[in-house]
Amino acid sequence: MPARRPSPHTLPEVAGGGLLDRRLFLRRGLVLATATAAAHTASATPDDDLPWLHEPGAPFTPYGQPSPHERLTARRIGANRAVPGNGVSFTPLEELEGIITPNGLHFERHHNGVPQIDPARHTLTLHGRVKQPLVFDVKSLLRYPMRSQLLFIECGGNSNAGWHQSPIQRPAGSVHGLISCAEWTGVPLSVLLDEAGVEPDARWVIAEGADAGAMNMSIPLAKMREDCLIGLYQNGERLRPEQGYPMRLIVPGWEGVLHVKWLQRLELSAQPVMSRNETAKYTELLPSGKARQFTFTMDCKSLITSPSHGQSLKQPDIYQVSGLAWSGHGRIRRVEVSADGGRSWADAALDGPVLPRCLTRFRIPWRWNGQPAVLKSRAIDERGNRQPERAALVAERGRAGYFHYNGIVAWAIDDDGRVSHTY
Amino acid sequence: MPARRPSPHTLPEVAGGGLLDRRLFLRRGLVLATATAAAHTASATPDDDLPWLHEPGAPFTPYGQPSPHERLTARRIGANRAVPGNGVSFTPLEELEGIITPNGLHFERHHNGVPQIDPARHTLTLHGRVKQPLVFDVKSLLRYPMRSQLLFIECGGNSNAGWHQSPIQRPAGSVHGLISCAEWTGVPLSVLLDEAGVEPDARWVIAEGADAGAMNMSIPLAKMREDCLIGLYQNGERLRPEQGYPMRLIVPGWEGVLHVKWLQRLELSAQPVMSRNETAKYTELLPSGKARQFTFTMDCKSLITSPSHGQSLKQPDIYQVSGLAWSGHGRIRRVEVSADGGRSWADAALDGPVLPRCLTRFRIPWRWNGQPAVLKSRAIDERGNRQPERAALVAERGRAGYFHYNGIVAWAIDDDGRVSHTY
Repeated sequence: MPARRPSPHTLPEVAGGGLLDRRLFLRRGLVLATATAAAHTASATPDDDLPWLHEPGAPFTPYGQPSPHERLTARRIGANRAVPGNGVSFTPLEELEGIITPNGLHFERHHNGVPQIDPARHTLTLHGRVKQPLVFDVKSLLRYPMRSQLLFIECGGNSNAGWHQSPIQRPAGSVHGLISCAEWTGVPLSVLLDEAGVEPDARWVIAEGADAGAMNMSIPLAKMREDCLIGLYQNGERLRPEQGYPMRLIVPGWEGVLHVKWLQRLELSAQPVMSRNETAKYTELLPSGKARQFTFTMDCKSLITSPSHGQSLKQPDIYQVSGLAWSGHGRIRRVEVSADGGRSWADAALDGPVLPRCLTRFRIPWRWNGQPAVLKSRAIDERGNRQPERAALVAERGRAGYFHYNGIVAWAIDDDGRVSHTY
Repeated sequence: MPARRPSPHTLPEVAGGGLLDRRLFLRRGLVLATATAAAHTASATPDDDLPWLHEPGAPFTPYGQPSPHERLTARRIGANRAVPGNGVSFTPLEELEGIITPNGLHFERHHNGVPQIDPARHTLTLHGRVKQPLVFDVKSLLRYPMRSQLLFIECGGNSNAGWHQSPIQRPAGSVHGLISCAEWTGVPLSVLLDEAGVEPDARWVIAEGADAGAMNMSIPLAKMREDCLIGLYQNGERLRPEQGYPMRLIVPGWEGVLHVKWLQRLELSAQPVMSRNETAKYTELLPSGKARQFTFTMDCKSLITSPSHGQSLKQPDIYQVSGLAWSGHGRIRRVEVSADGGRSWADAALDGPVLPRCLTRFRIPWRWNGQPAVLKSRAIDERGNRQPERAALVAERGRAGYFHYNGIVAWAIDDDGRVSHTY
């Protein structure tokens, strides 16, 4: 090992347990033990037996698909066996990198399956407390002014295994993967509301989907005017059927359930509709016996995706800790990581651009010395919201909360390098 | 029509031919004739005959696919009939919105088809003028520090029908769609170069792919150190086979051909290799008889995607003009649009974030009065590079240029609202 390069064993720590300066990896090289070992055992000449070096490859395709070697990178389905169209599928966050979720892996939450809608027969009706009711077909909406924005959508019930007495032992995505992030393009609601003309007593908009469950939710008119979209495109192409094709409501930073899919009706009203999904569900019973309702904004939160449950560190070495942070209140300001179970913390690097109500990727190098360790991350957003320790969250909200779990997630590494979930 | 809302007929123009203020659409509503007409003819009650309102929908899927109603949104394949793995497929830009290209629609350029690589048998060798040759398998590279960046990749031959004597009559994507944009995540080359140790006389890096064509290209070492990546992820998931699975070189803002796919070898050298693709191809004969070589950086450019060739305006009304701008030199600073064939120009709005070497979506409202019109767009980047008129480009570069065409694109609208390509 040439002397001019830093040794992983002598680099200074920026926090306990081996956390290193977040800029170190990109400032100068670090010798990783595995790469150097590989360099000594492999030849510099590619293997001549590899068939793809000798045979013409596969032809062009109109619409590409992932490599067959990546078929395990898939949504994990958790559907209700009695009602197969009711349930969720999780984005496999621990298999992904960056901030974009490819459209095929965007999480799903359906109440009655995925309707197969013919866009030529679908309309959106804007009515109720408006001066002039309007009906839009898909073609007419496509002519309207649009805006594109990179936004996360997170289910209000994401991470709710955090309320369990014992830490659930599942991959990160199968617990926290009811969140995905895409570039959504659509028509600002403000444009359509102005066109219809809003009556002075209107305060709420009741949004209804065209699935057989006719899912409906009430959303404050002020939010609709501020930044909501009729979403028509997802990562450049038209929405996927399971994401609301041909149109869904986009409600930046707010609970996933409000992003009504297969949107067919927007009714302006003086009062909320008090539907099942805003009374019996998506409310939270507090220790006082009262319940929270209309808890719209998704909280400030983060998650280390690598290393995470089920992964394994092969040997003491320097590792990249990588994860995601987000807040429905705006931009992530800072993510801190601890490698000693929360006794000391160091700032992670944030991959730019850091956008409001969008996932932010964070990274920090970590030297694992082969001893047991506990990794945690905590996010702070631009409004000063801080991700709480689990104990503080449970003390405030009780154990019947179910929705809006945003406690700090801890991964324990044992002396064999195996990673598991811990509290 | 309520009096308080602006009439499309009295709004002031910001440039000739009906261009309106770029902020107008998002500041207040505009009555579009089609929507209002629809409101008078349709009922506010959804059609009870729609089967998806009554039947449970389709089940959850591990990996989602587009709606069958969108099957025409596909790459347009232009393969060599004699050598089916040699050719291109175009991204259908006129069907897409925002800036992200979904992975299934990212353009392709192959010399010998798409190799079906087993990642467990693939390695990357870094050798030549280095102190210690290194070999990386995929697993070891995945442990390295990574960086994510939203970047376009554009083929050096994109838009080359612009050199034809007559304007080609094809959809925008089928002429200009050898460009796509994704979030790429990978290992910075600087990290690997530091680890191997670079010899003082090294100036070039020769990159070679593991396809049966063993495509190779020379790239200056300084660029490799500055911002190149070994790309492993594309829009969050592992690379698609046709994009170089399991790894490709990412060379921000430079010609697509340099982004070597199925990357298997990086050889440091004092001289370029002078391969077929940097001598016989990807060079440009000038009117002087000299040829340009190593014309790496993709030029400042823009394209109106809507309205564009093959589309049709149904009636005089206000339309959204929407398009893409990009520059390999950095950020787009400004996009101007003309509706009178270039006599007058108005600033388009840019959807944020505006990122370096990334697509930027621009938009401007336009009132079409039913008369023939010519729409154009021109981009200016942060370095002051301006997209040239076609005549100026041809005068400078001649008609045998073939690569690096970035002339202004003009769409003619006839009095029936039909859109075609014009010079």
